[in-house]
Amino acid sequence: MPKESLQINLAGIKLSKKSATPLYTQLYEQFREMILSNRLRPGDRLPASRNLAKELGVSRVIISQGYEQLMMEGYLIGKTGSGTFVNDTLPDNLLNAKKIDSVKSKIDSSKNLISTNKNIPLLFDASGLSAFQIGTPSLDFFPYKAWNNVGVKILKELKGFDLGYGDTLGYLPLRNAIASYLRVSRAVSCEAEQVIVVTGSQLGLNLIVECLLQKGDKVWMEDPGYHGAVAAFSNAGTTICPVPVEEDGLNIKHAIRKFSDARLAYVTPSHQFPLGSTLSHAKRLQLLAWAKQNQMWVLEDDYDSEFRYKGNPLASLQGMDTAGVVIYSGTFSKVLFPGLRLAYLVLPSIDMVNKFKQVKLNIDRQSPIMEQLILSRFMEEGYFLRHIRKMRLLYAERQTILIKLMHECLGDYFRLNMAASGMHLICWLSDKINIIKFQQEIKKEKLIVSFVSDFTISNHMPAAIALGYTAFSKYKLKTGVERLVRCVQNSLA
Amino acid sequence: MPKESLQINLAGIKLSKKSATPLYTQLYEQFREMILSNRLRPGDRLPASRNLAKELGVSRVIISQGYEQLMMEGYLIGKTGSGTFVNDTLPDNLLNAKKIDSVKSKIDSSKNLISTNKNIPLLFDASGLSAFQIGTPSLDFFPYKAWNNVGVKILKELKGFDLGYGDTLGYLPLRNAIASYLRVSRAVSCEAEQVIVVTGSQLGLNLIVECLLQKGDKVWMEDPGYHGAVAAFSNAGTTICPVPVEEDGLNIKHAIRKFSDARLAYVTPSHQFPLGSTLSHAKRLQLLAWAKQNQMWVLEDDYDSEFRYKGNPLASLQGMDTAGVVIYSGTFSKVLFPGLRLAYLVLPSIDMVNKFKQVKLNIDRQSPIMEQLILSRFMEEGYFLRHIRKMRLLYAERQTILIKLMHECLGDYFRLNMAASGMHLICWLSDKINIIKFQQEIKKEKLIVSFVSDFTISNHMPAAIALGYTAFSKYKLKTGVERLVRCVQNSLA
Repeated sequence: MPKESLQINLAGIKLSKKSATPLYTQLYEQFREMILSNRLRPGDRLPASRNLAKELGVSRVIISQGYEQLMMEGYLIGKTGSGTFVNDTLPDNLLNAKKIDSVKSKIDSSKNLISTNKNIPLLFDASGLSAFQIGTPSLDFFPYKAWNNVGVKILKELKGFDLGYGDTLGYLPLRNAIASYLRVSRAVSCEAEQVIVVTGSQLGLNLIVECLLQKGDKVWMEDPGYHGAVAAFSNAGTTICPVPVEEDGLNIKHAIRKFSDARLAYVTPSHQFPLGSTLSHAKRLQLLAWAKQNQMWVLEDDYDSEFRYKGNPLASLQGMDTAGVVIYSGTFSKVLFPGLRLAYLVLPSIDMVNKFKQVKLNIDRQSPIMEQLILSRFMEEGYFLRHIRKMRLLYAERQTILIKLMHECLGDYFRLNMAASGMHLICWLSDKINIIKFQQEIKKEKLIVSFVSDFTISNHMPAAIALGYTAFSKYKLKTGVERLVRCVQNSLA
Repeated sequence: MPKESLQINLAGIKLSKKSATPLYTQLYEQFREMILSNRLRPGDRLPASRNLAKELGVSRVIISQGYEQLMMEGYLIGKTGSGTFVNDTLPDNLLNAKKIDSVKSKIDSSKNLISTNKNIPLLFDASGLSAFQIGTPSLDFFPYKAWNNVGVKILKELKGFDLGYGDTLGYLPLRNAIASYLRVSRAVSCEAEQVIVVTGSQLGLNLIVECLLQKGDKVWMEDPGYHGAVAAFSNAGTTICPVPVEEDGLNIKHAIRKFSDARLAYVTPSHQFPLGSTLSHAKRLQLLAWAKQNQMWVLEDDYDSEFRYKGNPLASLQGMDTAGVVIYSGTFSKVLFPGLRLAYLVLPSIDMVNKFKQVKLNIDRQSPIMEQLILSRFMEEGYFLRHIRKMRLLYAERQTILIKLMHECLGDYFRLNMAASGMHLICWLSDKINIIKFQQEIKKEKLIVSFVSDFTISNHMPAAIALGYTAFSKYKLKTGVERLVRCVQNSLA
């Protein structure tokens, strides 16, 4: 078995010292590919780093780094004494992407998911939020201890030099950490020099608008779409062009036909906000081609792409961009905590970085240094990826629990969007429910329920609600659904 | 002697339980007034808190709090065993405001200042900056230990609740701490509800512009004046109306004559940037009256008012405003450290606060929580005032050293503005110096020297430089001046 898997590995692995990609990243990517394509199976043993290093003629450090990365993301597991193996827990979530077409199948497949993750308790909940607030991470499982340890170290090392006026573009070690994270986990092609740290994604949006758009410029906006972006665009006096969202994402044909002279397109390709659809490969190519031909910028808001519970992690749109038209935006609010107020942009050119730097100087000068110092160390020491992996498992479970509850208790009144990703669940209301009454009942029950209509611009769609689950314990989800049941019962037409 | 001073105190002291001002603050203010008005003299002994409490019929805690405040600001000093006395070191700086009219007098009066503060070493310097960078605090004397202790506590106590999306207006305990600091130290009349925490003063400026001004609105701008404000106003498309600055501040007559329809006036009344003049009482009344009659807002940027080395601490313009026309702006960048990125606005009405809240939501949502948690605790535990007091002494010394050096080495080539406040020294060039050559020499010497002309809009004034001293050790100031001497020698006309 070890020998065999050794064969498999070596067959597939080509490390090029010429490539811009670090060797350990090449190794990481190729192993990951093998795992996702099932050429390496759960339980397969990987060659010892010493042997593999010899075989490939690279330093052992490279191999260890590659393995470490794979372990942190949960592809591999190290068993002390006996070696390194393909993880037999997580691949359930990563492998065999199937379109889930019935609540039933989802629930079955998920049952063992729950059982395989006894390690994470589901009852504790310190978030203090009421169900079903959307877009907030689980703060009850935030790695307080790790954050604390890193923070204490940083405080001890604090130097006068750090506290002065710093780089408007962000603390360089943090920009480095973000760049390598994005390269590896999001297939974003970038160097630290292209990364700008911003004090929250909203400020990033305003910066983009200020730098790239003029009053009156047309902007393709997903409809329904992210209200924060709508606010940034309309405050700046740009013309918002609502584009309907379909099963496979933005209706690009419609956008081209109606708003051919747009200067920027705002998209959430990996997980459309709020509907949760994924922009298809075909549409991605179509969008990039159009943008290239028509000097249109594409703003990829990748706000929660880390949370994908089935299927291969999706590559970013930015990674497919050969023309330098995509501005990539990400945030730490969803993967760590909103109060951190750190987000980032990846710009296609250094010229654009310089322009952004000039403008940013007059907007907020720089982001706070303490957070940047702590976060960069937190990432460098591997806590960040470990946390994402843990949350991915937790959120998958919480989504499964909510789906199960909704199916059991409200199956007749809601049709669920089964996107195995994101931080909330979209539920379409049956016409048996009187919406006005329903909304009143929700207020009475003090539930926090977002309606998809809160995010529409001109698009009239059937009534649907977005139920957040990431921040809520099994107990809160259960009692939340019970209250939702009361709301439905009291608002039947 | 104790008995006597006891008489003095009690005669003056009226504590009203009806007043909105906390009792200990009333006590603090009345004692401070007695010290400043010389009714309490250096060395006077104060009554024991127990006795005073009995006399005034309040809890002893009130008295202790009031005394503590006075000690932190250096008005009182506690001598273990023998009681509490009026400080005989600092009052030199606070009492008998004299206009200093010659370098000589300044140096004499300062000699003993230096000698009285042997406790603060002057050689160590961790700032890493080159002389004579302006506007940067001394980071070599930042209270790392205290900040560290508070930070560690905060990290330990970190709760999920803190990390979520928080109040756009700022963390309430911090707003409380800021409000009470401003009431006591800056005579700003405000409640926590009027205070908005912003992520740096630049963002605060942009927020004000966004909320209060339309494109094309006229703005009175001090000329020369703060470039950050000029940037914020011009980016927003407002019309900047340059107003010359005189010995006693803004030329208000000129402003009224030429720009009677302005919507906002930007002023730095306690210490005009960059010239250092103070807005006279007469002009303050004139400005407020005009603003009231003509619905003009007055933006008081109180960026470095903490640093006043002689004369009574100046009251803020805001404290004189009865019409609710003043927006007060302050920052922690100068008193703590720039990388903190925390500043604040005090707004005249709750309606305005609500409007700002709406707009701020779409600009940056909220400020980072970690800094706010640490800073509020840092202030609550008294470290903040202690640090300001320490820096006030340090900067007074550093200013004195620089003045002495400039006088001894370059007396023939520069005329100094003797403002006993602020963070930099204005030096007028003699016409013996060829300015072009001088600027080239400064580059060669790698000195950082700001020219007043960098801050002028349309005002043509005689050549002057602004030399920062706050961030530099005696040694750096000495070598800096030596290099400056070389620059002058090589650029004589």
